[in-house]
Amino acid sequence: MAEVVAMRRQEDAGGPVHADLRDGILRLTLANPPANALSLATMTALQEALDAAGDDKAVLVVVIAAQGKLFSGGHDLKEMQGHRADDDRGRAFFEHTFATCSRLMQTIVALPQPVIAAVDGAATAAGCQLVASCDLAIATDRSTFGVNGIDVGLFCSTPAVALSRKIKPKHAMEMLLTGEMIDASSAREFGLINRVVPPEYLNQIVTKYAQAIAAKSPLAIRMGKQAFYAQIEKPLPEAYDIASGVMVENMLARDAAEGIDAFIGKRKPEWTGE
Amino acid sequence: MAEVVAMRRQEDAGGPVHADLRDGILRLTLANPPANALSLATMTALQEALDAAGDDKAVLVVVIAAQGKLFSGGHDLKEMQGHRADDDRGRAFFEHTFATCSRLMQTIVALPQPVIAAVDGAATAAGCQLVASCDLAIATDRSTFGVNGIDVGLFCSTPAVALSRKIKPKHAMEMLLTGEMIDASSAREFGLINRVVPPEYLNQIVTKYAQAIAAKSPLAIRMGKQAFYAQIEKPLPEAYDIASGVMVENMLARDAAEGIDAFIGKRKPEWTGE
Amino acid sequence: MAEVVAMRRQEDAGGPVHADLRDGILRLTLANPPANALSLATMTALQEALDAAGDDKAVLVVVIAAQGKLFSGGHDLKEMQGHRADDDRGRAFFEHTFATCSRLMQTIVALPQPVIAAVDGAATAAGCQLVASCDLAIATDRSTFGVNGIDVGLFCSTPAVALSRKIKPKHAMEMLLTGEMIDASSAREFGLINRVVPPEYLNQIVTKYAQAIAAKSPLAIRMGKQAFYAQIEKPLPEAYDIASGVMVENMLARDAAEGIDAFIGKRKPEWTGE
Repeated sequence: MAEVVAMRRQEDAGGPVHADLRDGILRLTLANPPANALSLATMTALQEALDAAGDDKAVLVVVIAAQGKLFSGGHDLKEMQGHRADDDRGRAFFEHTFATCSRLMQTIVALPQPVIAAVDGAATAAGCQLVASCDLAIATDRSTFGVNGIDVGLFCSTPAVALSRKIKPKHAMEMLLTGEMIDASSAREFGLINRVVPPEYLNQIVTKYAQAIAAKSPLAIRMGKQAFYAQIEKPLPEAYDIASGVMVENMLARDAAEGIDAFIGKRKPEWTGE
Repeated sequence: MAEVVAMRRQEDAGGPVHADLRDGILRLTLANPPANALSLATMTALQEALDAAGDDKAVLVVVIAAQGKLFSGGHDLKEMQGHRADDDRGRAFFEHTFATCSRLMQTIVALPQPVIAAVDGAATAAGCQLVASCDLAIATDRSTFGVNGIDVGLFCSTPAVALSRKIKPKHAMEMLLTGEMIDASSAREFGLINRVVPPEYLNQIVTKYAQAIAAKSPLAIRMGKQAFYAQIEKPLPEAYDIASGVMVENMLARDAAEGIDAFIGKRKPEWTGE
Repeated sequence: MAEVVAMRRQEDAGGPVHADLRDGILRLTLANPPANALSLATMTALQEALDAAGDDKAVLVVVIAAQGKLFSGGHDLKEMQGHRADDDRGRAFFEHTFATCSRLMQTIVALPQPVIAAVDGAATAAGCQLVASCDLAIATDRSTFGVNGIDVGLFCSTPAVALSRKIKPKHAMEMLLTGEMIDASSAREFGLINRVVPPEYLNQIVTKYAQAIAAKSPLAIRMGKQAFYAQIEKPLPEAYDIASGVMVENMLARDAAEGIDAFIGKRKPEWTGE
């Protein structure tokens, strides 16, 4: 196991996304500083890493972090601007870019494992969308958040999809219309992130959250995360039908039998993920 | 009337849910301490009490409270675990349990009268779902809230239905994934409860809220509560169609004519509930 | 241009809604104090002003304000009560009133330009709905908010449509069931308004927000606002399809090409709104 982990870590050391799996926690690090732009190459690398993680029983939690002083500045504007010289004025490239980005963000939501954003620095436009799309987010007190595409004449319509599902409409509209950055404390108050920490404690606290989740039954976590997002967009009766069905299957799984037995017997449960 | 109330209070004194109707306020008390578990018997008793209340013009507001130091610990895990010996490994019992629970929670939402949770102590798993399902909730400052089924390998998927309709997704996911308890102050900040009070004032303040609502036109309260939950899950044009129709019928009712006339004439209105 | 603006300002000086267009900011002022009731005449005048604004390229932002010490007390109860003497007991008039009001509120949401409520004083019932319906809201610290129709036997079912899309259900239900007013600070905490300011700074700060938005690409603002409300009520995949399509068209517009080019070249963009 340690060898496999070590191998994996070496394999992707040169790409725009570094992957590091330790003790069930897969840390994906955006590695094209200073802006950590979500270029097509970066988005594709992140998509591949997430697709592989989704199928990998050894991955219990995913952390998305970034190198350098910025978390992510969003799309690679130079890359996009370069395609205006294409025969179709860039239409095909832009369509491909936004389809790729939208698929990536939905993959985070649909991923069986919880995804935690570990933010240090500015998260703007699609970078802010990435934070919004994660299940949990922890940020340093010097982090800032904004959907400031409007400053370059490009309203952050796709980031708005993720943002408006996590924070209230008037907060989202203020950010989208003015392009102003908010600090970590406001982001916590708005519900965009879960917690604000001093920079020197970011890794420690993210790891604490990840370990707490990794110590749960992986089966129950997977069933539950999927049920959560499946039911949230349904009318109440349908939402309860979905969730009740999942509860029954979760109860019939070995981990719930073990977990409840351990609870009644006042002992520590041992999960098998079945 | 006083006799009827007295009779009703005696009738159900021995069951897992005590009912006490005074001045239009029906107080339902979970009465199987210490955990006030939502066993099948307790859920059935609560369902019956709510069904009766829904049809009872004398009931203007419902308060759900609990005996002892815990509000409710959620499902009766020992009862459920006992059914693993059934021929079907408990499937039928689990299906019945979650169907009963989901129906109960939806009954609270659909009940014509407002329902206020009066919480003192821990409200966990389906106990937290019960608080989330109520229209209003008031809790003592020593109360705590959690959806901690994940600690026994059972993700709180059905509690998540109620929770995710009352608090923001990242707050809900943190509670669901980590199983950690939050204090009353966080619960108020998240929107799970309306108000935090010192223990010695809980009854007084809950009664104040209940009396304020009981003093309104019962007809308008019923029409309005139902319109609220009917429109909230619809697209905007449909939501307005529903609500506009309700406003017209409300205006044509006797109580609105009386209420507006009293307002214009600067006198106190007298409701007939028609 | 200055003449046109001046003319417009004179034209509507006598009606229940005053319009004043300066530098792209259309200020609509409710002008039937003290209550600034949303009588049929006032709603019709506001509807006409918004319809004209939606088609007017010179209007970049709309501000809704009010004369006097109250923002708006909601529907004109005397006007409505007067129609109880009609042959149909007022049904036709009530239907017309709520249809007119619901159309007006949806027009604000659908308006291509952002709408900012500038609130000083009490905003009650449909007056509170008006604030909730705006994209942004800034209020003085002496402003109060309530949906207190229940006090006259008329549950604020249509205001609840706007309110429940901007604040959390338990906050909305407390306001609707008790009819109690909340202060500006609570309204900000609940997400009903964006910012609280001292009365002497209201105009200055509203103007600052309006100017900031008016300085953006009008095309991008229009595309983005419409995409925001189109996607917010859709399931996630459909929401991303809508928003991705808008992003592509926004990228292909002249303003985004100019804006991104200016950003890369570190110069100020010049919008043409195309």
